[in-house]
Amino acid sequence: MRIFPAENDPIFLPLGFRWAAVEAGIRYQGRPDLALIDGGDHTVAAAVFTQNAFAAAPVIVSRQLLVERCSRVRGVVANAGCANAATGVRGLEAAREMAKQATSCIEGAGPLNFLVCSTGTIGVHLPLEKVLPAIEKAAAQLGSTEEHFRAVTRAIMTTDTRPKYASVEAEIGGRKFRVAGCAKGSGMIYPRMATLLAFLATDAELTPGLLEQCFKESVAQTLNCLTVDGDTSTNDTAMIFANGASGVRITSSESESTRAFLAALRKVLESLTIQLARDGEGATKLIEVEVNDARSFEEAKKVALAIANSNLVKTAIHGRDANWGRIACAVGNSGVEVIPERVTIAIGDLLLFADGTPLPFSEERALEILSEEVVRIVVSLGLGNASAKAWTCDLTAKYIEINGAYRT
Amino acid sequence: MRIFPAENDPIFLPLGFRWAAVEAGIRYQGRPDLALIDGGDHTVAAAVFTQNAFAAAPVIVSRQLLVERCSRVRGVVANAGCANAATGVRGLEAAREMAKQATSCIEGAGPLNFLVCSTGTIGVHLPLEKVLPAIEKAAAQLGSTEEHFRAVTRAIMTTDTRPKYASVEAEIGGRKFRVAGCAKGSGMIYPRMATLLAFLATDAELTPGLLEQCFKESVAQTLNCLTVDGDTSTNDTAMIFANGASGVRITSSESESTRAFLAALRKVLESLTIQLARDGEGATKLIEVEVNDARSFEEAKKVALAIANSNLVKTAIHGRDANWGRIACAVGNSGVEVIPERVTIAIGDLLLFADGTPLPFSEERALEILSEEVVRIVVSLGLGNASAKAWTCDLTAKYIEINGAYRT
Repeated sequence: MRIFPAENDPIFLPLGFRWAAVEAGIRYQGRPDLALIDGGDHTVAAAVFTQNAFAAAPVIVSRQLLVERCSRVRGVVANAGCANAATGVRGLEAAREMAKQATSCIEGAGPLNFLVCSTGTIGVHLPLEKVLPAIEKAAAQLGSTEEHFRAVTRAIMTTDTRPKYASVEAEIGGRKFRVAGCAKGSGMIYPRMATLLAFLATDAELTPGLLEQCFKESVAQTLNCLTVDGDTSTNDTAMIFANGASGVRITSSESESTRAFLAALRKVLESLTIQLARDGEGATKLIEVEVNDARSFEEAKKVALAIANSNLVKTAIHGRDANWGRIACAVGNSGVEVIPERVTIAIGDLLLFADGTPLPFSEERALEILSEEVVRIVVSLGLGNASAKAWTCDLTAKYIEINGAYRT
Repeated sequence: MRIFPAENDPIFLPLGFRWAAVEAGIRYQGRPDLALIDGGDHTVAAAVFTQNAFAAAPVIVSRQLLVERCSRVRGVVANAGCANAATGVRGLEAAREMAKQATSCIEGAGPLNFLVCSTGTIGVHLPLEKVLPAIEKAAAQLGSTEEHFRAVTRAIMTTDTRPKYASVEAEIGGRKFRVAGCAKGSGMIYPRMATLLAFLATDAELTPGLLEQCFKESVAQTLNCLTVDGDTSTNDTAMIFANGASGVRITSSESESTRAFLAALRKVLESLTIQLARDGEGATKLIEVEVNDARSFEEAKKVALAIANSNLVKTAIHGRDANWGRIACAVGNSGVEVIPERVTIAIGDLLLFADGTPLPFSEERALEILSEEVVRIVVSLGLGNASAKAWTCDLTAKYIEINGAYRT
C-alpha cells in the first residue's frame, strides 16, 4: 500500500484555481504559514465543521459566511501557528478581518467572499499586524502551477511531518474533470464532523446543494473515520470549492455523473485520510480497522472507531504484540450490542478469535504481519451486511514527547 | 495530599473477616497471585460489574451467583495473571469451578457460596490444574491478621506498582464499625460500572438492598470517576461484603446510621480511587479534575471525565505545560452543552481562562503548580450548582513501554 504521493507523481490540478502561500511569521519562522486559495467568480463551496462546543472563531465566522453568501464564496484564507480558538469577541473580529482582507485584496470592496481557517495553539490571540500584510502579499502571488499548490500544502502544516495531498482526474461522457485536495493534522484528531483542515477543489460544476450532499456523504466515510488520539479539535474544518471550469456538469443526485464525481471525491478524501492517519503524531505505523457484517454502517463505524481509539490496541500494535484481547475489549466498549460468540477477530489474514474462544495461531506469522508499516485489523460482527473502515496510527513514546512540550 | 497509606498506618480490619493469599503460579512466579476473602456465615454482598459487552466469565458467573443466592454469599476467590475473558463456554465452566472449589474447601458440599474474580491477560484459558489446588491451600491458611490482609492486597496486583488499600473506623451511637477495602488496577481503567477489582468488607450489618444502594451511590462518585486510559476492562468488578460482626446495624436509607456508613464507605472508596489513579501505568502525577457549577452531577462528571480522558491534557500536565487550551477543547468535546463565555479554567489556584478569553498569567507560578505530584484542574461551567470530581494520571512514555510489550 502506497501511502504518500511521490515527488514526481502527477498532480491533477482543477482548472481555474489559483493558490498562494507566504511567510507571515505567526509562530513558525522560515516557512510559509499563510495560504490563500481562490476558485474564481463562479465558485460555490460546501464545508463541514467541528462539533466541539468551543468552536474556534474562524469556524464560527466561516459557518456564518457560508449561510450569508448562500454558498457563493470563491475561496479560503488559512493560517498555521495560531488556532484563534477560545479567544472571545476579539477572536471573532480577527477572523472576520482575515476574510475581509482576502476579499478586498482580490475583489476590492464588496460582500465577504472568502472563508477563513486557523490552526495552531488554542487560547492565543491572532497577530493581525502580521496576518493582514501577509494576505495582501499572498493575493499578489496567486498562481496555478503545481509549485503554487505544493506551497499551500506546506503552509497549513503544524506538527505534521509532511504535506498531505491527493488528486484525481476522471471522465464523464468523454469530458475530463479533476478533484484535488490537501489536508493537515497530526494530533488532536478525532473528527466528529471533519478533520482539522482539509481543502478540496474541483473544476466540475455542481449546485451548492448537490455539492454539499456529495461532500457530507464522502466525509462521513473517510475523514470522519479517522482518529489519532480521540480529541476533537476546536478548529476542525473541511471545505470543498467547485468552480465549473472544466465544463463538466454534475446533475441530480441519482445520475451517473454524480456517481462518477462521488467516486473521484471519495478517492481523494480516502487518500488524505490515510495520509493523515499515517502521519499522526509520533506514528510509525498506519492501522486500518475494517469492521464487517454489522447491522448498519453507523454501527460498523462505531466499532471500528472504538478499536481505533483504544490506547491499548495502539500500543500493542506499536509493540508488535498480537494482543487481540484488547481488540475484543474495545469491541465490547463500543456501545454497539454485539454477541461475543458471533464475533471474529483477525490481524491481517491471521484469524485469532472465533466462536467465542481464542484460536491457536503462529506467533511467528503474527510478528511478520505486525512488522509491516500498514497493519490491518479485521473484525466481523456476524450481525448483518454493513461494513466500515477506520484509520489510525500506533501510539508511541514520541507522541508523549511531542505533546509534553508543544506550547513551550 | 497523602496518596498511599504508610507502612505503619493502622489498618482497621472489620471483625469476622478472614483473608488468605497463596502462590498459584498462573503467570507470575515468586509472588502470591490467588486471594480468598471470607466474611463468614452471615455475610451479604453487593457488587457492580463492567458494562463491556465482552464481560469476562467470572463477571458473568458472579452476577448469576449473586442473584441465585439472593446476595447471600460469604466471600470471593480471585486470581491475577489470567483474566478468563473471551474464553467462551470453557471459561464459564472454569469460573464456576473456582467458586465450587472455594465453597467446598470451606463449607463442604452445598450451594455455591463464593463469588469469583479474575484479572490479567484477555483471551487465555485459566490453568485450573494450578488454580484449584491453590484455592485449597488458601482455604487452609485463612486468617484475620493485618499480614493476611496485606497478602491479599498484593495477590491481586498485575501491572500495579504497589498494593492499594484503605480502611476507616467509625461510630454510630457509641458503637464502632469498620470498612476496609483493597483494589488493583493500573491500565485499561475507565470504569463504567466499577473498576478492575475492588473488594470491600465491613462488619456493619445491612440488608442486601440497603448495602447495594449505599455501594452503588458511593461507587458512582468514586471508582466510576476514575480513568487511566479510557478503556473499560472486560473484568471490572467491585464488591462489598457485610457480615454484621460489629453488632452495629445500619437501618433505613434516610437514617443517621446510613449517613455515617455512607461517609465511611465513601472515604475508603475515594482513597482507593486516588491510589488507583496515581498508580496508573507509567504515571508520575495524580491529576484531580474538579468541575463546579454544573446543571447536574451527571453533567459535571461527564465534563470532568472528558478532561481526564484527554491524552493531550495528560501529556501537557506530564510536560508541565499550562496548555489550558487543551482543557477548553476537552470541555467542548464532553457532549455537555456549555456556554464558553461562562466557563472558567484554573490549574491549582491559577485562573487561566474566563469570560471567553485567555487571562495573562505567571508562567513561573504555573510551572511551580505543575511540578507538584498532585495537579488540580478546576473548571466552573457557570450553569448551576452541581459538582463532580474525576481522577486520572499523566500520560508518559512509560505507559507506551508497558503496553507495547504486556503479553510477550
